Amino acid sequence: MSRILYDLAGEDDALRFSPYCWRAKLALAHKNLSFETLPWRFTEKDVIAFSGQGKVPVLVDGENTVSDSQGIAEYLETAYPNEASLFGEAPAALTQFIKSWTEDVLHRALARIIVPDVFARLHPKDKAYFRETREKAFGATIEALAADRAAHVPALQAALTPLRSTLKAQPFIAGAAPAYADHIVFGALQWGRLVSYTPLLAEDDPIVHWMDAVLGTYGL
Amino acid sequence: MSRILYDLAGEDDALRFSPYCWRAKLALAHKNLSFETLPWRFTEKDVIAFSGQGKVPVLVDGENTVSDSQGIAEYLETAYPNEASLFGEAPAALTQFIKSWTEDVLHRALARIIVPDVFARLHPKDKAYFRETREKAFGATIEALAADRAAHVPALQAALTPLRSTLKAQPFIAGAAPAYADHIVFGALQWGRLVSYTPLLAEDDPIVHWMDAVLGTYGL
Repeated sequence: MSRILYDLAGEDDALRFSPYCWRAKLALAHKNLSFETLPWRFTEKDVIAFSGQGKVPVLVDGENTVSDSQGIAEYLETAYPNEASLFGEAPAALTQFIKSWTEDVLHRALARIIVPDVFARLHPKDKAYFRETREKAFGATIEALAADRAAHVPALQAALTPLRSTLKAQPFIAGAAPAYADHIVFGALQWGRLVSYTPLLAEDDPIVHWMDAVLGTYGL
Repeated sequence: MSRILYDLAGEDDALRFSPYCWRAKLALAHKNLSFETLPWRFTEKDVIAFSGQGKVPVLVDGENTVSDSQGIAEYLETAYPNEASLFGEAPAALTQFIKSWTEDVLHRALARIIVPDVFARLHPKDKAYFRETREKAFGATIEALAADRAAHVPALQAALTPLRSTLKAQPFIAGAAPAYADHIVFGALQWGRLVSYTPLLAEDDPIVHWMDAVLGTYGL
């Protein structure tokens, strides 16, 4: 059976640089499927018109035409179930990236904003410890961080973009129901929600609905 | 059996704001395990000295003492295997967040840097199409993007932080072997590697080693 992938090329036929086509090529290799690629250019819409749309990758697998890298991955997973799963066997391993993102990006963006509010809410016996460690970490006084707060709110909103996109695609980070990946990200945003004197998210924000759905799942 | 979680509190005993303690509370709820919490403050190191370290969450589950939210999650997953998995049953769903992050963060950071290099490498018949669509998307000419390139390299390096952290914890994003989550992120960085006239990553960068390991897995 012939298997053809239309693959974006530069002027040089051999330069195949599309990130989405690379996904498809690796997915085919992962499924241990042989294939040929055909170089394609952005303006060659007529060449792939048979696929019903105008972008690559387009896979022609015998009788089947599939476009869009995500569509191709899902097609290969279904059509070749006896080969290694494209989505892996280890959800715990995939949770690691979400943990790294939460701690490296989300915690940092939140901390920059809410450390002064945390300070204000601490037990008096904790304040000296917290001031010393956080002022050292940020290289700024609690008061300087508070004065500069508004300048850092846009960075938090930008950091939340991948979470917003994920929650457009599915109800929870782990899929149809919450799991530890949700707990990790929820923990960060609950920290912000409980501590910040100024709400960080609007009440009708889809992220707030997701947080409430996580709590509701567990009756909390 | 008693189950106690030491839980960071503010001055108000009821204010429990630690993101790591929230992870532990949700993980316990996910496993359908009842527990009590005890308010704890940063400076009460002596209270949790029995755990062998100085931070919360600390879980005392009957005879077992476990600290660190990740340690607690892994302990609960092992100790209560008959309850719902903390790490979920659907690796495909967890891959969605990695896809969202790749497209919302990594592709944007890369594109801001390499669009002029892509333009230079395109087939002549594609250049007008590419210039029009990309200049509209960025609100700047190809030449202006090129002149401003160096200013955007630090943002790419910052964006890569969660990937670096993940690859310190495990060899691939999907764990011990690559899967589609790796393919998605690889696609983005391979795009940069093939197109950029100036290398974006040093040859000895752990991300480059991971990219080569992905290709090597498939004999590519």
